[in-house]
Amino acid sequence: MSSSFGTLLKATTFGESHGKAVGAVLDGLPAGLALSEADIQTQLDRRRPGQSTLTTDRSEVDQVRILSGVENGRTLGTPIAMQVENRDQRPGDYGEMDAVPRPSHADYTYRIKYGLAARSGGGRASARETIGRVAAGAVVDKWLLENFGIEIVAWVEAVGDIAAPLPDINILSRKTVDAHPVRCPDAATAVAMTDLITAVREAKDSVGGILVCVCRNVPIGLGEPVFDKFEALLARAMLSIPATKGFEIGSGFAAARMRGSAHNDLFIEKNGRLATATNYSGGIQGGISNGQPIVFRVAFKPPATIGLPQETVDYDGRPVTLQARGRHDPCVVPRAVPIVEAMAALVIGDLILRQQARGR
Amino acid sequence: MSSSFGTLLKATTFGESHGKAVGAVLDGLPAGLALSEADIQTQLDRRRPGQSTLTTDRSEVDQVRILSGVENGRTLGTPIAMQVENRDQRPGDYGEMDAVPRPSHADYTYRIKYGLAARSGGGRASARETIGRVAAGAVVDKWLLENFGIEIVAWVEAVGDIAAPLPDINILSRKTVDAHPVRCPDAATAVAMTDLITAVREAKDSVGGILVCVCRNVPIGLGEPVFDKFEALLARAMLSIPATKGFEIGSGFAAARMRGSAHNDLFIEKNGRLATATNYSGGIQGGISNGQPIVFRVAFKPPATIGLPQETVDYDGRPVTLQARGRHDPCVVPRAVPIVEAMAALVIGDLILRQQARGR
Amino acid sequence: MSSSFGTLLKATTFGESHGKAVGAVLDGLPAGLALSEADIQTQLDRRRPGQSTLTTDRSEVDQVRILSGVENGRTLGTPIAMQVENRDQRPGDYGEMDAVPRPSHADYTYRIKYGLAARSGGGRASARETIGRVAAGAVVDKWLLENFGIEIVAWVEAVGDIAAPLPDINILSRKTVDAHPVRCPDAATAVAMTDLITAVREAKDSVGGILVCVCRNVPIGLGEPVFDKFEALLARAMLSIPATKGFEIGSGFAAARMRGSAHNDLFIEKNGRLATATNYSGGIQGGISNGQPIVFRVAFKPPATIGLPQETVDYDGRPVTLQARGRHDPCVVPRAVPIVEAMAALVIGDLILRQQARGR
Amino acid sequence: MSSSFGTLLKATTFGESHGKAVGAVLDGLPAGLALSEADIQTQLDRRRPGQSTLTTDRSEVDQVRILSGVENGRTLGTPIAMQVENRDQRPGDYGEMDAVPRPSHADYTYRIKYGLAARSGGGRASARETIGRVAAGAVVDKWLLENFGIEIVAWVEAVGDIAAPLPDINILSRKTVDAHPVRCPDAATAVAMTDLITAVREAKDSVGGILVCVCRNVPIGLGEPVFDKFEALLARAMLSIPATKGFEIGSGFAAARMRGSAHNDLFIEKNGRLATATNYSGGIQGGISNGQPIVFRVAFKPPATIGLPQETVDYDGRPVTLQARGRHDPCVVPRAVPIVEAMAALVIGDLILRQQARGR
Repeated sequence: MSSSFGTLLKATTFGESHGKAVGAVLDGLPAGLALSEADIQTQLDRRRPGQSTLTTDRSEVDQVRILSGVENGRTLGTPIAMQVENRDQRPGDYGEMDAVPRPSHADYTYRIKYGLAARSGGGRASARETIGRVAAGAVVDKWLLENFGIEIVAWVEAVGDIAAPLPDINILSRKTVDAHPVRCPDAATAVAMTDLITAVREAKDSVGGILVCVCRNVPIGLGEPVFDKFEALLARAMLSIPATKGFEIGSGFAAARMRGSAHNDLFIEKNGRLATATNYSGGIQGGISNGQPIVFRVAFKPPATIGLPQETVDYDGRPVTLQARGRHDPCVVPRAVPIVEAMAALVIGDLILRQQARGR
Repeated sequence: MSSSFGTLLKATTFGESHGKAVGAVLDGLPAGLALSEADIQTQLDRRRPGQSTLTTDRSEVDQVRILSGVENGRTLGTPIAMQVENRDQRPGDYGEMDAVPRPSHADYTYRIKYGLAARSGGGRASARETIGRVAAGAVVDKWLLENFGIEIVAWVEAVGDIAAPLPDINILSRKTVDAHPVRCPDAATAVAMTDLITAVREAKDSVGGILVCVCRNVPIGLGEPVFDKFEALLARAMLSIPATKGFEIGSGFAAARMRGSAHNDLFIEKNGRLATATNYSGGIQGGISNGQPIVFRVAFKPPATIGLPQETVDYDGRPVTLQARGRHDPCVVPRAVPIVEAMAALVIGDLILRQQARGR
Repeated sequence: MSSSFGTLLKATTFGESHGKAVGAVLDGLPAGLALSEADIQTQLDRRRPGQSTLTTDRSEVDQVRILSGVENGRTLGTPIAMQVENRDQRPGDYGEMDAVPRPSHADYTYRIKYGLAARSGGGRASARETIGRVAAGAVVDKWLLENFGIEIVAWVEAVGDIAAPLPDINILSRKTVDAHPVRCPDAATAVAMTDLITAVREAKDSVGGILVCVCRNVPIGLGEPVFDKFEALLARAMLSIPATKGFEIGSGFAAARMRGSAHNDLFIEKNGRLATATNYSGGIQGGISNGQPIVFRVAFKPPATIGLPQETVDYDGRPVTLQARGRHDPCVVPRAVPIVEAMAALVIGDLILRQQARGR
Repeated sequence: MSSSFGTLLKATTFGESHGKAVGAVLDGLPAGLALSEADIQTQLDRRRPGQSTLTTDRSEVDQVRILSGVENGRTLGTPIAMQVENRDQRPGDYGEMDAVPRPSHADYTYRIKYGLAARSGGGRASARETIGRVAAGAVVDKWLLENFGIEIVAWVEAVGDIAAPLPDINILSRKTVDAHPVRCPDAATAVAMTDLITAVREAKDSVGGILVCVCRNVPIGLGEPVFDKFEALLARAMLSIPATKGFEIGSGFAAARMRGSAHNDLFIEKNGRLATATNYSGGIQGGISNGQPIVFRVAFKPPATIGLPQETVDYDGRPVTLQARGRHDPCVVPRAVPIVEAMAALVIGDLILRQQARGR
């Protein structure tokens, strides 16, 4: 019952990995944005499998088709339905796993919840569900950039134990991030990460990682008091992405170790308006954006599907050794970059509309 | 516009710290729960200021009054309105700060957002807003315990650099947690935390901390796919609490460093149903509860209001030295325990209704 | 689960007729409106019982108290909680009816729905629930008038078979409406209506009626396509008022008999912008306001509680003669005027915020 | 921003009349319903143009395709996306009208609202939007029938001045309704209606009408108190259908003329449970279903698009004579039957889930 996200700018996604199509309906975007399928395809291509040796070789073209909401190259203000056909369905790959719930996957919980099981590799827990998010997010992303100058850039900060230093978040671009397939902007670290992912893949294992995302030029005053604080909505958005385990805004867990005298972001005057000398707040104070860059982190677990044998039990509780043969990513963070950006765009776009509603 | 939380079980809070009253309206709770004001007061007393030397000495009685939704000691299934009068208002304490936005507080962002400023110490960013959450959460908490046997227990794991070992989460009780005012169940660590908070207070500074929360006996199958995954709703709920900076479910950020072969929770048979040998998932797989204890962490920053002088600027950008004189907590985590429990109860209660809606 | 109304401007009502208090929380109103309790009291006084011989003599003072959201006489942009204590509770009056479901009342359906019965005269089906609506609506009404010049005026068009001619809707005021207690602006008809209500009351019976409501100066462009068309939201709002049976926008049911050539509102140029020569549309075209006065009708049934004996059955199906002794109105339409206005205000206020959200 | 309907069972429609496709996403339907495209097609065929000489000859095949949410012929409990391609687009037909807002159509209000105009004949005010409603409603309709025995049957009661007597609502079936293309179950009246529609068409005019809908076997206890009363949701649902002007539940506007002693539905004992001797309530009391048939009426205006010349003005206020040449229906009520049924199904389905949420 929860395939919709947003209060005024609402994205509804649909589709299982082995059905006919996946996609999204984006409702509430103001009219007049120049939009073509190519605008959306760019981000879908950054998400799709098979784009580098670091990812699963399931090769989906993932070509988006806009069904509605756009006329003569401009959005109408009406729902924008976007659809991607599922072409490369190999349900057979998963056949033998039907009797065994994959550890740390959604097989078991879905079966209990719904009382029936979708074909494995399926259901809405599939990574293919995120295609709809990326498509909807790409539209909003373009609207945010063109109308407000908002730039959203996510990148890989850590893969397993390998972590990169913080880049200059004021200038980092998607192009820089994409310079290396692992999507870490620090070249040396990127190589090390690649080596690690390759090694993990050869070991038929998987590994986790951390993404950072910065949102620049976000207007002051976004975010709603109490339950829809900016960081609360970001946290929900990010933890709704498959395989996420943690979220930090600004200083995050490190704040727990700090003193207020060190953590407080003192105000300074800059270019005629108030800014802060530091940004432990991550651009949000009291749940509302303060004009500094929004900075947050998202932790991803190692993918649950691994080629190594696992001693587990089947649905009847009988011991079984499970060894996955389906295609899978050894590490999801490189492909998660456009997903995180999409969810951030959906959050920001909705908050802009909600603030505009006040007539301010 | 966001003072309501929940889809079917909906809590709406109201009230500023210096208005007449604060409170909540809880709508959607099924009829028939035995409920008195005393049931709610227990959790409010754990939240209220002045309960120990560790907290602010603002002394509010915080006596709750049920206005509706209960008849002859039973809930009617109609909105339960609860109200706490504000008695100890000393707006004068904040008077001089009106011209200066307090660093890392909501003064500046609220002013921009709304175009006018509430009296300082006020607005909805005040900690007093959480009274409504605790009241509503206490009602739901009782309903969860009596109808489903669900037990929610939060405690302080870390204050600054001082961290406690993980207790036995299968037996930990609120009584054990409350044995020491700092609400850390490890006695030795509790003493060290108390010393640290006392020292920080004397230094006119503040310090952050970490809470852990466990939810036991949560039915399998709760949580909605895609955007309302169980952990996504928890993350939003927790990051909506003032002063929070991070959220982790199960393994959290540590998952980023792990291999799938180590992180996967292998299934085992236990008492005739499936369980998992480990619980890195934190009781949630694919966004849906799997019957293991739900375990999550919340990071709190050091309170922004400190007695130390701070070199900042006023609303006009002119340098000023700010030194807070209002009453304030040097560390919020002991009092945050019932707030985290309340938000967890609201999340779980809503998810139960949503699952029951399926007729399962 | 449905005590909240509105998407951005949200009113949540609470309270049973025999509990401690009734009221509402209004969330989402932009900051800066001058507001006092007297502003709200005016409409509450038009709704309260005992205001004339035409209504029940249950005498409730219905004094409103603002608990939050207002500081120094201005709204803060935060939830405005309003409360009215229940003073004149005489639960004994209804005591004997506990075993018998009153015909055409909510006793039976509530009992099945909730599995328990509130005291009679109670539950949320009580007319006292509308106090919260009127209070919230009065606040929005003032905001609409002061910021947009929007004027909302409802009046009684028919009581039983007695119907008044349509007044000049471009100038009709609440003052004119209130000139006669029955709230029909046509003096002669008002007298006849009063006679009818008096006769019905003496006959221990009740009678229905029709209200008309006009909303002037509503900006062009309000209303959302598809499911939240302006008239759809009005229809829901009005049919949510107790005792309503029908809703018409503009031409209403009479449209069914008309030809398109007669019904179409031809455009004309007026004062430099487009207007329409007729207003069969009732000010709404394609679900969106067109700048003409919004005009709609609401049908009310005769109150179900009557003093005449009724041959019905008790909860066990045993025949019984029921004769109500509680206080009750012989006709609700005079007191329904401020309720209809309040609901119209809530609808329009919400639609204004939603349109402003587009940045237009 | 309002293309979604429902709280738990949510239908989101998309598509303009001249875009690539129209359709709907239905989220929240419990898993396990047997469903094929043929089940949906039946109702779409009753809605589509060109099905008889009474309707527009725009010939759309309107073949539905299920994209997601169904596997092996059973619903998965996940979003069911349904799509119908637009094949017969003749945007040229409307070309010349681009400078002139059609009277009583949405052209003018949409232009002001969005600041840009979709191609005429288009936008979301087009009748083709209702395809998504009918598709989503058909799925829910099947679920209601198979799981609860709920039967929803709408029919044409009046066209212009020609009205049919009330049929036996306890046995009326869709098959009987469809016996005559005008969808009036009274044979003689159906002929007269057909003659009238034919005459109106030849006169290049249009005519309004009234639909009645009965919902049988609706469980007792559906409907939410206060703002989501059963009739309030039905009223919103019906007034959201293009061209509707009025709604009545049960006795409707006639109730205004009645006495309570005549209008009250006295309880009787029937087959071991309570029933009512009459059904002026239309099956709903206090906003909640009482087990009697739900009966409501919907008034439709004459279609705004007519072939007769109309003296109106263009967007610049200059007088112009408008004469529509596009294809259009002289009377919409025969084709509106499945739309009304679909909206009723969506309302009832959602209310069932909401009641089940209580665990009752």
